Amino acid sequence: MWEQAWLTYRPEKNRQCPVFFQTIFVKSEYLSDVVIQSGLDELLRAGLEMYNVSFTIQNRDPEPLELGLWIRVGGQDQLGNEGYEILEKEGLIELRCNENKGVLYGIFRLLEIFRTGEWMENLHVTEIPKNEHRMLNHWDNLDGSIERGYAGNSFFFKNGQILTDQRTLDYARLLASIYINGVVINNVNVKEDATLLITDKYLTELDVLCSTFHRYGIKLFISINFAAPMEIGNLETCDPNDELVVNWWMSQCEKVFNKVPKLGGFLVKADSEGRPGPFTYHRTQAEGANMLAKAIAPYGGILIWRCFVYNCQQDWRDYTLDRAKASYEAFMPLDGLFDTNVVLQIKNGPMDFQVREPVSPLLGAMKSTNQFLEFQITQEYSGQQKHICYLVPQWKEVLEFKTYHTDENDQIKDIVSGKTYHRNIGGITAVSNTGDEPNWTGHDFAGANLFGFGKLAWDVDNSAESIAQTWTRLTFGNTKEIEENVCKMLGMSYRLYEKYTTPMGIGWMVNPNHHYGPNVDGYEYDRWGTYHRANWEAIGVDRTSLGTGYTLQYHPKNQIAFDSLTQCPMELSLFFHRIRYTTKLNNGKTLLQHWYDEHFEGMEEVKELRELWTLSKQYIDDYVFERVDERLKHQEEHAKQWCDVLTTYFYRKSGIVDVHHRGIVE
Amino acid sequence: MWEQAWLTYRPEKNRQCPVFFQTIFVKSEYLSDVVIQSGLDELLRAGLEMYNVSFTIQNRDPEPLELGLWIRVGGQDQLGNEGYEILEKEGLIELRCNENKGVLYGIFRLLEIFRTGEWMENLHVTEIPKNEHRMLNHWDNLDGSIERGYAGNSFFFKNGQILTDQRTLDYARLLASIYINGVVINNVNVKEDATLLITDKYLTELDVLCSTFHRYGIKLFISINFAAPMEIGNLETCDPNDELVVNWWMSQCEKVFNKVPKLGGFLVKADSEGRPGPFTYHRTQAEGANMLAKAIAPYGGILIWRCFVYNCQQDWRDYTLDRAKASYEAFMPLDGLFDTNVVLQIKNGPMDFQVREPVSPLLGAMKSTNQFLEFQITQEYSGQQKHICYLVPQWKEVLEFKTYHTDENDQIKDIVSGKTYHRNIGGITAVSNTGDEPNWTGHDFAGANLFGFGKLAWDVDNSAESIAQTWTRLTFGNTKEIEENVCKMLGMSYRLYEKYTTPMGIGWMVNPNHHYGPNVDGYEYDRWGTYHRANWEAIGVDRTSLGTGYTLQYHPKNQIAFDSLTQCPMELSLFFHRIRYTTKLNNGKTLLQHWYDEHFEGMEEVKELRELWTLSKQYIDDYVFERVDERLKHQEEHAKQWCDVLTTYFYRKSGIVDVHHRGIVE
Repeated sequence: MWEQAWLTYRPEKNRQCPVFFQTIFVKSEYLSDVVIQSGLDELLRAGLEMYNVSFTIQNRDPEPLELGLWIRVGGQDQLGNEGYEILEKEGLIELRCNENKGVLYGIFRLLEIFRTGEWMENLHVTEIPKNEHRMLNHWDNLDGSIERGYAGNSFFFKNGQILTDQRTLDYARLLASIYINGVVINNVNVKEDATLLITDKYLTELDVLCSTFHRYGIKLFISINFAAPMEIGNLETCDPNDELVVNWWMSQCEKVFNKVPKLGGFLVKADSEGRPGPFTYHRTQAEGANMLAKAIAPYGGILIWRCFVYNCQQDWRDYTLDRAKASYEAFMPLDGLFDTNVVLQIKNGPMDFQVREPVSPLLGAMKSTNQFLEFQITQEYSGQQKHICYLVPQWKEVLEFKTYHTDENDQIKDIVSGKTYHRNIGGITAVSNTGDEPNWTGHDFAGANLFGFGKLAWDVDNSAESIAQTWTRLTFGNTKEIEENVCKMLGMSYRLYEKYTTPMGIGWMVNPNHHYGPNVDGYEYDRWGTYHRANWEAIGVDRTSLGTGYTLQYHPKNQIAFDSLTQCPMELSLFFHRIRYTTKLNNGKTLLQHWYDEHFEGMEEVKELRELWTLSKQYIDDYVFERVDERLKHQEEHAKQWCDVLTTYFYRKSGIVDVHHRGIVE
Repeated sequence: MWEQAWLTYRPEKNRQCPVFFQTIFVKSEYLSDVVIQSGLDELLRAGLEMYNVSFTIQNRDPEPLELGLWIRVGGQDQLGNEGYEILEKEGLIELRCNENKGVLYGIFRLLEIFRTGEWMENLHVTEIPKNEHRMLNHWDNLDGSIERGYAGNSFFFKNGQILTDQRTLDYARLLASIYINGVVINNVNVKEDATLLITDKYLTELDVLCSTFHRYGIKLFISINFAAPMEIGNLETCDPNDELVVNWWMSQCEKVFNKVPKLGGFLVKADSEGRPGPFTYHRTQAEGANMLAKAIAPYGGILIWRCFVYNCQQDWRDYTLDRAKASYEAFMPLDGLFDTNVVLQIKNGPMDFQVREPVSPLLGAMKSTNQFLEFQITQEYSGQQKHICYLVPQWKEVLEFKTYHTDENDQIKDIVSGKTYHRNIGGITAVSNTGDEPNWTGHDFAGANLFGFGKLAWDVDNSAESIAQTWTRLTFGNTKEIEENVCKMLGMSYRLYEKYTTPMGIGWMVNPNHHYGPNVDGYEYDRWGTYHRANWEAIGVDRTSLGTGYTLQYHPKNQIAFDSLTQCPMELSLFFHRIRYTTKLNNGKTLLQHWYDEHFEGMEEVKELRELWTLSKQYIDDYVFERVDERLKHQEEHAKQWCDVLTTYFYRKSGIVDVHHRGIVE
């Protein structure tokens, strides 16, 4: 069996049952709406589980002084199709919205406010999403495995079948409660059976799944295989300019959308890490994307095209190439050439979800192209759900980064929402961290990342702290003690993880393939373009305008700052600069001493996590406590391995001792 | 289909058919012997394939001046049960032997002599094996996979079934032709189905397989699971001193040998790399081995017990441990405590089949214990049958090493045969390199290692060169041109591979798990006890008597030599010593310059392999030529990767440039 994560409604014995669990005023015409019905179902479920009460429905407006929840739909253009307003006045709660999803979201929010103790008289909340598209990408394979999954197997697929069951519904509920409105269900690396998702073999099952998610206001998308015309269409090419190919996609998409009308569209990873794409036929990425976009445009489909394009056959001996530049070089010249229903999906950084990277220069630079920002919730490089690493602070930094392409205060968050450049599609997407583990995310604390992503995508101005507080109270129980300890753990976790792993933006010092655990040279002599080039006196790649020229991809204001070691944020210094071990940083320490300090500090600080968790023991269910505690124990041991390897390696390379004489062996 | 390797009988058009293909004088009573029959079958097959002739059998001795092959069995005690004598006189060839296997071996030898052009008038060959046991270990799993196999899948097992078919017979023929008389058919890591080999599930099939190999004078052995009493016997322990456990094995072995009377015995890997063993119950290795030995003694079974016991959970930070010492420390105190039907199987070096290691100090030190020397034919650390690496020279060095435990001239070869200490069981065993690839060994040249092992185990005084010549002529064709080129390739291959990979005995700079390709720190911060500890000024572990004390496990004469950097063989200097990069070696070069030179020379020399192969093109079947050429091309590229990584790593660590300014990048 599985748990309900932050939707665990604990019996409330000592509190008064609020009115909204008891009487609901709603016009009966809305009761046939599946989305509104899902909202009412949730309210019923919560009322039963918390108070063992159910509500009565009044098919009318409330009389003066009547108490209850008054659901009003329509005539609220200012709220858009997803916004809602909650007003409390003398025991009557009004939930106003313009369309059905507002009811669903409003009810989830109402429950959350109540459960976290934020409830008060004269409450007035108005919420309108900052991002139209708030999506999850699942890297689930049809055999049930999950690429980079750290929480068990897929609950979407098993042995080549699509699953739709109670767990599916519970997942949809979880996602709706954090405002997720789009989900790509299969891995971007589309192979074998997954190629057949667009064929009769799967369309009926897919339609059932889409309808299930539709009940929670969520559109499903699928990842498709650019080579499908060859692999399943018996064509000899998949050249996007070939008429047979164009026609094949046209006809295939007609079949798909006829059978699965609620499908949102396609996601494509092309010309990336061995995946086929338009480059094979000397066509541009725009030609590839537009061909597919045209085939699904008649059905309102969106074509999401990933920008993760780089040379993964690089020669480590060649110092002239810089993988960080690849995505910008491939896509920037195409700005304005994409159809209006194409969105480019751009990873937050130029490399690949390292613990810290600068913001991708493509974000903001492209002015005439729809963009989705892509985060990674699944902790591939951030502890694989064995370490705690609360990623919302990382995402906040990205969203608040100023590109300077428009004015002094422009920020990524307004670029990706479409606001800055008045783009017609925008949003944020992220690789999910869920699987069929009972707690959905393997590490219970990883739930905060999923929860936080949804909350942040809805409102980028939510703070990392307030999100953590809400999640903690919903998940572990509504007490100050738990909140304090758990939020402290979450709050320190990202910086701490960065310290004992790869500080200063160097990244990549992990074991190849599985990417877990320290290995300084793991990718150093390989073909992936991810080098630190450390020698006896210096480390890093010079990506300044005098080096590989990567910084030239930014607005001159950022370029000048990144170019200068003193102006560059210290936490990114080794991303942009090659630095001698003996060079003094802004904090007055030498680079290598700072490296040592970061690691030893991180390793020491990690111990505090377990201490804080132990303090919470009395408030937490035993099995949950143990589940987390076991991982914390591992994290502590593994942090020591990280620290010892990453300090010993550089001591052995440089001969420079730690001035505090910590732990390094000869 | 599969090929016949060195038993490929090419049609001989321009030579006269020798008499031994035409008339055979043999008493009819011998014709019912399955082993002799196999010998005659081989002669028939060769005659048909080479000359399209078959022989007539005369059930009598030859008259004076009659021509033919005269097989005489018995009354030749000096030849033992496997020896043979071949005498040619005026067209009559006498094959004398004492028992049936002599006939089989003699016929294979006769064919070989003829096919390689060594045939002459008045030929007189007498052969008696130097080692009683000449065995192969297969690391084949019952699912058909092969651990460390580089030539396809198993031909012994498939999907949990034992296979006995034409390929089995052909394998037995190949092995008999090189005097192999024992084969362990399954992986020493015994798990799942393999544990059931000693149960009714497999005994009938096993008996069929044993009978098949018996036709070629080969005894089969199986690897068993020490934990079988728990895993399949429903006991709660596998303590070797527990009466229930003892009885379980007694009864199980009775069943096994009743159904499979030709079985030779068991091989056991216990207390090693996670395998269960007597240590769990605080029993000695001798107690574990003897318990099993007693259970199979009534049936003439031999219990082979591997000495590969070490701590595989070592802390890399702990400089006081030295894995090289482990095997000696575990077994030396037990010398004399093993039953007479127990044999300890000891790897050639103290670590694990690295490209070069010193000889294991256990060999020779244990005086009252039966020993098998274990080599590795499958090229785990020596190029995985993608690189050419002719290993016979390595084995010769081991066999000719002097332990000084008896006299000035004692050699490992006489210790392992049992001669030195008058032990009742002795021999040499090796991990096979075969699989279901058409050519049996993946790389055609890897066939020379299998062939060479058999020839060497039979007669340790055979030279690496003569073995190479024989193999080359038998395999690729009987011409001087092929022999010259191929033997040159084989002859240079081991040293060359050592040069561009890990010279001077340092070993282990490979990628973890699969062990292919360079990775200097691949095992450096791991738990396997295999460290180089290179820093900015020095590399290596001091294993001298002043260091970890490993050299103290040798006789003082060897200890003193290994302790001294000037007396220690240069090719082992980094096994025994920690050396500064700037230290001058015996050749006058600094350590690091020698390191650079070895790598660049190796990388250059490897090109010669392909040139030599190209010279042989006209003599080699096209598909064989291409198969080898493709691998040579890869070897050349991969040697460059080895060279560049292993020189760049140390340049970056030391800052010391190659005086010849080759290839190293900044």
